Amino acid sequence: MFSKETYMQRRALLKKTLGSGVLLFLGNDESGLNYEDNTFRYRQDSTFLYYFGLSFAGLSAVIDIDEDKDIIFGDELTIDHIVWMGTQPTLKEKSELVGVEQTMPSNAITNYLHKAVQKGRAIHYLPPYRAEHKIKLMEWLGLPLARQEGSLDFIRTIIKQRSYKSQEEVVEIEKACDITADMHITAMKVLRVGMKEYEVAAAMEAVALAAGGDLSFATIATVNGQTLHNHYHGNTVKSGDLFLIDAGAETPMGYAGDMSSTIPADKTFTARQKEIYDLQVAMHLESVKALKPGIPFVDVYDLSARVMVEGMKQLGLMKGDADDAVREGAHALFYPHGLGHMMGLDVHDMENLGETLVGYDGKPKSTLFGRKSLRLARPLETGFVHTIEPGIYFIPELIDLWKEQKKFADFINYDAVEGYKTFGGIRNEEDYLITETGARRLGKKIPLTTDEVEALR
Amino acid sequence: MFSKETYMQRRALLKKTLGSGVLLFLGNDESGLNYEDNTFRYRQDSTFLYYFGLSFAGLSAVIDIDEDKDIIFGDELTIDHIVWMGTQPTLKEKSELVGVEQTMPSNAITNYLHKAVQKGRAIHYLPPYRAEHKIKLMEWLGLPLARQEGSLDFIRTIIKQRSYKSQEEVVEIEKACDITADMHITAMKVLRVGMKEYEVAAAMEAVALAAGGDLSFATIATVNGQTLHNHYHGNTVKSGDLFLIDAGAETPMGYAGDMSSTIPADKTFTARQKEIYDLQVAMHLESVKALKPGIPFVDVYDLSARVMVEGMKQLGLMKGDADDAVREGAHALFYPHGLGHMMGLDVHDMENLGETLVGYDGKPKSTLFGRKSLRLARPLETGFVHTIEPGIYFIPELIDLWKEQKKFADFINYDAVEGYKTFGGIRNEEDYLITETGARRLGKKIPLTTDEVEALR
Repeated sequence: MFSKETYMQRRALLKKTLGSGVLLFLGNDESGLNYEDNTFRYRQDSTFLYYFGLSFAGLSAVIDIDEDKDIIFGDELTIDHIVWMGTQPTLKEKSELVGVEQTMPSNAITNYLHKAVQKGRAIHYLPPYRAEHKIKLMEWLGLPLARQEGSLDFIRTIIKQRSYKSQEEVVEIEKACDITADMHITAMKVLRVGMKEYEVAAAMEAVALAAGGDLSFATIATVNGQTLHNHYHGNTVKSGDLFLIDAGAETPMGYAGDMSSTIPADKTFTARQKEIYDLQVAMHLESVKALKPGIPFVDVYDLSARVMVEGMKQLGLMKGDADDAVREGAHALFYPHGLGHMMGLDVHDMENLGETLVGYDGKPKSTLFGRKSLRLARPLETGFVHTIEPGIYFIPELIDLWKEQKKFADFINYDAVEGYKTFGGIRNEEDYLITETGARRLGKKIPLTTDEVEALR
Repeated sequence: MFSKETYMQRRALLKKTLGSGVLLFLGNDESGLNYEDNTFRYRQDSTFLYYFGLSFAGLSAVIDIDEDKDIIFGDELTIDHIVWMGTQPTLKEKSELVGVEQTMPSNAITNYLHKAVQKGRAIHYLPPYRAEHKIKLMEWLGLPLARQEGSLDFIRTIIKQRSYKSQEEVVEIEKACDITADMHITAMKVLRVGMKEYEVAAAMEAVALAAGGDLSFATIATVNGQTLHNHYHGNTVKSGDLFLIDAGAETPMGYAGDMSSTIPADKTFTARQKEIYDLQVAMHLESVKALKPGIPFVDVYDLSARVMVEGMKQLGLMKGDADDAVREGAHALFYPHGLGHMMGLDVHDMENLGETLVGYDGKPKSTLFGRKSLRLARPLETGFVHTIEPGIYFIPELIDLWKEQKKFADFINYDAVEGYKTFGGIRNEEDYLITETGARRLGKKIPLTTDEVEALR
């Protein structure tokens, strides 16, 4: 937890910007896995963590701007709780750690909100992403499930505030990145032909847990890297495979790291793997070079895509004008996702507040295949933290579909591509902070080039 | 997954027993951690697994007894899904693996249920344990949140069926127990003074993941074993500490193991630790000896409690008649939980269907402190699988409270107990199958006696 001044300042800025109204913050409850008391690991809501810092189930909070009150709603522990769950500071004591003086029992919130509504005051709330939130909004505010969009000004103000990472936040994020790097370095050391994917994933997860935190998202560790979000870990690693890892750690305070790496199952890359891998590294390095305040991230994405098309042309897999190919979307056959996303208390930072509000500053996004998957497109600003993660994939189902449709036949040499249908996929990913003059990589460096990877194998 | 005949036979027995009506099975969806798409690991509902075997999000099922139809509701994958999540068998193909011929799109279920209601037929459903289930019951059946108790005949019939483990289920449970044993043996080998609790937990979790499964519940690995469900892992292990572990593995098919062990932080137990530890082992072994079909589990619990009281009397911590102490509840100061619980597809098997229906055959349970925490009290039967886990704890807050209240002063020597307030807690736990003639321990043996534990340290 940061000092209480941090949370008080964050809330003060929020109040000042919004000016009036009652702000409702729904903390997260425990989530039952196969029955109510067998819970998943507890994770507090990130916006609640940002303004109220307390990572405990059963809390809600209100910032009543009109009456200048910050209140945390929750219940004190009984002796039964203490026997089963251990002794803890009281809610009052915990709340004081984040500069909140007033606490009320959890069942007092409905009445508090109803009274505010009766006084004709606006209740601002955030869009729900858990079913438990939806039920609370329905029961506490009478909002039907189909009309729980959230309060736009409240959402925008939070995004504006959370987008700029403070020095102390960057320190926390960098801790997460260091652990994340250790996870990848561990995988590079242990991976051997004949292992099961889950054995590699287990070794990586142990690194995150042994650092006192947890995973920031479910690990991808797969011989089928061409499947973008593949969480199946049951395959055996074979000679000739490329092993793609996308994994990250979360610190006890909730900050995320997120990196990707691609490792040959054998000690070295084959000549053919190296050609595609080197091209992916070129996309990566050119993108990093372009990072600076003011540049629209979509321009960096376009740059990475053009680098890929030029390289694919040299390999005989694509043809035609690179600018045209990227504008029309032909590159998306091999690179169907975006270049990166904001990162902070969430690995996709603030994704629950709305992708276009966070990544597009509210402007509309493309509907084109590939380009529609960009999570971040807006101009970068000093203090933003985001990932850089271009990729090159050979997705058999997509190749077959486009080939049959003769899609982008002017740009794609389908006959040559046919020979790559068992190649797999390559992605490398690092995390960056936008500085006054450019960008700084966060956390320990993980091997990126083929030489660096092979040195560790 | 078992063969399709297993699932067809399970459903046939359910239909035959209930005779009429429409049975609704809610599969589990993905659960968002800090935003919708950053999900916890996926876990299917156990009853859905038992009758329909498919571990995928977004499914529901209906057994329409009156029309003799088994239907799985769900949606086929689009090309966007395949790019992001990989190719999969179709829902039709998956359903055939569990002997279900009919599939319908997920949005057809409301209409199906409404038509059945219009025809005047009863819809049977289970009590919800996830907020997502509550919303579905509200939207699909018009059931207000406060009136979703579930259908008693349906619940009782499922409990009756799932309580008796088949041969192939026992094989699966034993796999989970073997991995669970390896988790504990690993911890006994790696634990050293100076380590953080989370480092031990990480080593254990890696064992479960590297076996291709997951945890069956959140690991307890703590120097504060006196706190019964302590999931905090931030303490440093000190010389003289007792380290209590309660942890288990889940197989890819969803079956659970659950064991506990208590290890000295040093290579050996102190004389004082050994006294209490040996007493706990005596409780454990006497309980195991008593296991057989027909014996009420509450009688085995009483036996374990009496063994403890007799031992505590010899140590000068208790006094008076052991039978009286146990009947009145004085032992619960040191042993405030039950002796064990059913285990199967859930680590507390079928807990979501109601604790008294599962563990008490619907009979009322005690409200007395300690005795009210018995999850299992009913007579054991051949085919039941359950844990044996007595414990002895010195809970400072509870000791202070009872001492102040002079509670059970005829049975407890508070002055002597005072000297044990930093002792911690001890629990050992194994898993048993009730056989025709007695009981069989499931899975690899983990060290139980002080000699066995010290040999591994």
